[in-house]
Amino acid sequence: MPGSAQVQADLPVFRTVEGHTRPVPFILTRDMFDGIPVELGGAEISGLVDQPVAEPHVHEVPEIYLLFAPTAGAAVIEVEVEDETYELAAPAALYVPAGRRHRFVTRRAVPGSFCFGLFLHSGLQGSRR
Amino acid sequence: MPGSAQVQADLPVFRTVEGHTRPVPFILTRDMFDGIPVELGGAEISGLVDQPVAEPHVHEVPEIYLLFAPTAGAAVIEVEVEDETYELAAPAALYVPAGRRHRFVTRRAVPGSFCFGLFLHSGLQGSRR
Repeated sequence: MPGSAQVQADLPVFRTVEGHTRPVPFILTRDMFDGIPVELGGAEISGLVDQPVAEPHVHEVPEIYLLFAPTAGAAVIEVEVEDETYELAAPAALYVPAGRRHRFVTRRAVPGSFCFGLFLHSGLQGSRR
Repeated sequence: MPGSAQVQADLPVFRTVEGHTRPVPFILTRDMFDGIPVELGGAEISGLVDQPVAEPHVHEVPEIYLLFAPTAGAAVIEVEVEDETYELAAPAALYVPAGRRHRFVTRRAVPGSFCFGLFLHSGLQGSRR
């Protein structure tokens, strides 16, 4: 039904992402809702303290890291971008330009802490890569 | 520094949104990172059970509701879109087309549950509305 609200069932969907050691849970992918220009991957991270989920890797599109926790400061991650390391305390956002090598490592996270990567594709009806 | 990673400090930012009874906390706005095509508003919702944060209202752009909780099903919201009501259990995503009257009401949410609205603007360098 064009123009109606649409619910995406059966989330998350797991996708292989280059550099990541395990399939990544995605809440949004480009093929949902008849085509959207973003992807959103990530999960609850309280069980990932000091455990990287990926080797440093690059994407062809910009990625924004998003960090949330039940209370301010209750989650801390380190984001490595090329030779720099950024410490983020929730709530936080960090922009990684396309082509820059990056990864994150959880350093502190109470239950109910989440880290997401929001991938920004251009265009409203992009086809799957 | 074009091409470098950028951290957004001092989050969330609070913005007045038509239909909402209080300023809305935003993690992403279009003026961040030299201009991005999305906005992300929302917060932890465990204190909002049965408390709407807005009257039904419309936006000029599509909005995707995103619902997260520490464990599957630990948060439930109802999203009203025009005359339909959709019950979502975390993790969940629901697409509201531009111009459709909508709001959400939290029905169940343990601490560490979040509801966000992701607004999809077109173009990678859109100017502020």
